[in-house]
Amino acid sequence: MRVKFHKNLDELKERLLVMAGLAEQAVQRSIEAYRTRDLSLCDLVFQSEPAINRFEREVDQMALDLLAMEQPMAVDLRFLYAVLRINADLERVGDQAVNIAARVQEMTAQASAELPVDIPKLANLSSAMVRKSLQSLIEANSEMAHSVLAMDDEVDAMNSDAFHAITELVQRKPDLAPQALNALIIARNLERVGDHATNIAEDVIFWVEGADVRHSSDSRSEKRDVEETS
Amino acid sequence: MRVKFHKNLDELKERLLVMAGLAEQAVQRSIEAYRTRDLSLCDLVFQSEPAINRFEREVDQMALDLLAMEQPMAVDLRFLYAVLRINADLERVGDQAVNIAARVQEMTAQASAELPVDIPKLANLSSAMVRKSLQSLIEANSEMAHSVLAMDDEVDAMNSDAFHAITELVQRKPDLAPQALNALIIARNLERVGDHATNIAEDVIFWVEGADVRHSSDSRSEKRDVEETS
Repeated sequence: MRVKFHKNLDELKERLLVMAGLAEQAVQRSIEAYRTRDLSLCDLVFQSEPAINRFEREVDQMALDLLAMEQPMAVDLRFLYAVLRINADLERVGDQAVNIAARVQEMTAQASAELPVDIPKLANLSSAMVRKSLQSLIEANSEMAHSVLAMDDEVDAMNSDAFHAITELVQRKPDLAPQALNALIIARNLERVGDHATNIAEDVIFWVEGADVRHSSDSRSEKRDVEETS
Repeated sequence: MRVKFHKNLDELKERLLVMAGLAEQAVQRSIEAYRTRDLSLCDLVFQSEPAINRFEREVDQMALDLLAMEQPMAVDLRFLYAVLRINADLERVGDQAVNIAARVQEMTAQASAELPVDIPKLANLSSAMVRKSLQSLIEANSEMAHSVLAMDDEVDAMNSDAFHAITELVQRKPDLAPQALNALIIARNLERVGDHATNIAEDVIFWVEGADVRHSSDSRSEKRDVEETS
């Protein structure tokens, strides 16, 4: 019974990682579309959304079935709780890819412009956060999960810089406002991807350590929330 | 045993509603700060954040304890699953209030300006969505929850209009870019509040009907996601 249960938990983790792969691929495609202005990549992102949504439902149902039938305790209960939360975050990573692709679609109708925000760099960093948070899940490695939290500060700082640089740009060159505001929104979408990776890392820590680190370092969390918007 | 269990479920629901009240109050204060430029209201929002975070932890812990000790099935299991998800959404509503208050702080250092986005109206609508989604939880009323989903389209449309009106404004009056871009971000924060209310309504429907409506109406959900960014 227990052997079967742990086989089911492994299977659930595998499905969650497939879900993660789909969400991550969607973000990568949306950024590649931004870089190359290739609208077929946007279409691929839109098309992948229903598959990601189906996966979310499947993973949640598997987790609920295990909760109901196996009545797990302690670490296994925390794992299923973490899976439910991580699954929701991954689905929202996929939503951000859709949002970015929609911005890119609009931007391709506008003249190409030099903008003071390095979207591919921001995307690399927030994607690295997602990958690392999932690696910490695979390895049950809470130390690695903690390192994801530190990366979030860097994403927030880049986003804050982008906000001020874009404000300054549109004052100097108002004609570029349509492109600049789209890029601003894309930067914020990527920041939200980083926020989801942070959530995932916190859930891994709760699962592994049994300790809830959400909002535990108050100064840090307050700082993050305030900076997140600037 | 069962009587005690249902007493515990009622208590859990009550705590979740306290959590909701705190999150809602924070949004109202942040918008009142926007309207009146009263920075003491921003401070109240920042100060309320730790309390909201503590409530999130408490509610999650109560739900996990009930899952572990009572091993609920079917409708009760779905209820606890819904509580966990709704709780996370409410905490993020509180985060949006913090984000708005931070924008308002920055705006008070800038000259007051007439902006083409009715932030209080957008706030009223998204707050109404949160209240209605919670009312549907209290009454176990899935019909009411469905009506929240329709309201989200209105919020998204208002936000899309705001994006284009603000782009147009900064092209005409580039000096207003700092204020305008802050208002744009606040509008998007409020749209996220509406998204959280939508998530809550979907969780109520899943609990009451046992049917997962997330992404079920594909055309609607795709439309929503694409419009959400514009």
